[in-house]
Amino acid sequence: MKLVTGATGFLGPALASAFEARSIPTRCVSRQRHAGAELAHAEYASLDLRSVEPENRIFDSVDTIVHLASTTIPSTSMDDMIFDARSNLEMALRLLEAARIRGIRSFIFASSGGTVYGDPVRLPVRETDPTDPRSAYGISKLATEKYIGLYSRLYGLRGISLRISNPYGPGQLAGTPIGLVAKLLRDVRAGKPVTIWGDGSIVRDFFHVDDLMRAVLLAVTGDLAPGVYNVGAGHGTSINEIVALAERITGKPVALEYQPARNIDVPKIWLDTGKFRAATGWRPEIGLEQGIEELWKEALERH
Amino acid sequence: MKLVTGATGFLGPALASAFEARSIPTRCVSRQRHAGAELAHAEYASLDLRSVEPENRIFDSVDTIVHLASTTIPSTSMDDMIFDARSNLEMALRLLEAARIRGIRSFIFASSGGTVYGDPVRLPVRETDPTDPRSAYGISKLATEKYIGLYSRLYGLRGISLRISNPYGPGQLAGTPIGLVAKLLRDVRAGKPVTIWGDGSIVRDFFHVDDLMRAVLLAVTGDLAPGVYNVGAGHGTSINEIVALAERITGKPVALEYQPARNIDVPKIWLDTGKFRAATGWRPEIGLEQGIEELWKEALERH
Repeated sequence: MKLVTGATGFLGPALASAFEARSIPTRCVSRQRHAGAELAHAEYASLDLRSVEPENRIFDSVDTIVHLASTTIPSTSMDDMIFDARSNLEMALRLLEAARIRGIRSFIFASSGGTVYGDPVRLPVRETDPTDPRSAYGISKLATEKYIGLYSRLYGLRGISLRISNPYGPGQLAGTPIGLVAKLLRDVRAGKPVTIWGDGSIVRDFFHVDDLMRAVLLAVTGDLAPGVYNVGAGHGTSINEIVALAERITGKPVALEYQPARNIDVPKIWLDTGKFRAATGWRPEIGLEQGIEELWKEALERH
Repeated sequence: MKLVTGATGFLGPALASAFEARSIPTRCVSRQRHAGAELAHAEYASLDLRSVEPENRIFDSVDTIVHLASTTIPSTSMDDMIFDARSNLEMALRLLEAARIRGIRSFIFASSGGTVYGDPVRLPVRETDPTDPRSAYGISKLATEKYIGLYSRLYGLRGISLRISNPYGPGQLAGTPIGLVAKLLRDVRAGKPVTIWGDGSIVRDFFHVDDLMRAVLLAVTGDLAPGVYNVGAGHGTSINEIVALAERITGKPVALEYQPARNIDVPKIWLDTGKFRAATGWRPEIGLEQGIEELWKEALERH
């Protein structure tokens, strides 16, 4: 049984579907109650993981925890750093302690390739490069990685932190209100201007959520060694490039509403994914143009 | 005005005395009420920093916070990692937020050179080497460093984390029950066996608390750039070597009581202190033999 936290966010439902397609039994846990269709191989539980005890039945028969839940996004983490640290670390530590006590072998964590490094000292950034986050979000992600490493070294957990860059794809706006690509297409369709922070020169490592799900499955089902792995496209795209791509694909002009650059955003970052690719054979397969085209087609069909 | 937290521990009183010798006004804050003699240039306040607000009068006229307080030691941090994270991070974040709001320029933090690195990838270990702690204590120290770095980058704080190795000296057992050198001399004097973890081959970077205080003063009063600095002797001494030294100095045989090695202890660590030495001109001046001789002489005179 695989336990997925953050099951009502962007990544949780995508992972549950990926497990479903492989007939892997999954227990989906989230603070909100599950809405929408239930998958055949999935169970659903709703609770606050900040107070979960190792004896809780959600851990029955579980061999792997995939921890996707987060109480914050980078911008909101700065509103109350104590809340960010307390809630996210407490959640992770309770899950790790449950894993130790219940003999759960694997723990896969959705860390953040875009925030744990801060301003990268080189591009693409490697796992061994300095980690000096520019947001509380990045610090609590990093500290969670360290706790997972501690449990791996001391208690034999197979603890894997995936430093995920910027996934995009279907369902992105369902959970947290982030996701440039999704917001862009939504606003273009509605004929509304698109808000961006700074002048559009910010560069991020965008990749498709289906590629990410194949990576998570490899981490879950393979024999990947404990540790920290970058997962992303491995190359950067600026916001201005994404906007140009969206204009070409949608055939509509994109009106931009510029907001001041935020001090939590690093100017440019993309990930060196060589460690994860060498260990698993994984490669991202869906290019940005193809991904955005499909999203646009879906959006047009839905409305 | 300098604000010193953890004022009733090992390092707090030593720092208050160092400020006193230079007529620097100091406000000593601790959870416990101050006992013993009061210094002429010092004020004393007793409160729990985990709930301190920026408006608190302890921050009045303060230009520098020296944050020495900790709610745990490495071994106790493992008993309740949630308590360790919550109490230490909350304390640090409240002090940092007070510094930001009250315009306090400098923040000097007693980090831990012996725990933030985990098993060093090389010796002596450098500030840029990997940080994979083997204890919750090391993780909360590391996360605190990252918050200090965040406040430095975003809000212009002069935030300095001193990764201190293993200071020893007068007053060591007053606060926390750690300190091999102090315990060794106490037990030798009492004719009791000395408990050590493992076979005595563990190597640590011992240096005298007076050398540490000169380092802290340089960080407080100089123009040292924000960042992370190793501070220690810069070379290693095994427990067995310390025991042999103590036998020679005291003229008494030391009976050892061996306990199983602890999984939180790294086998060998000492620090490369080149970055701090180059920036400040600091050098440790008191050798281990001299330091232990003085401590032994004091102990004999006291009793």
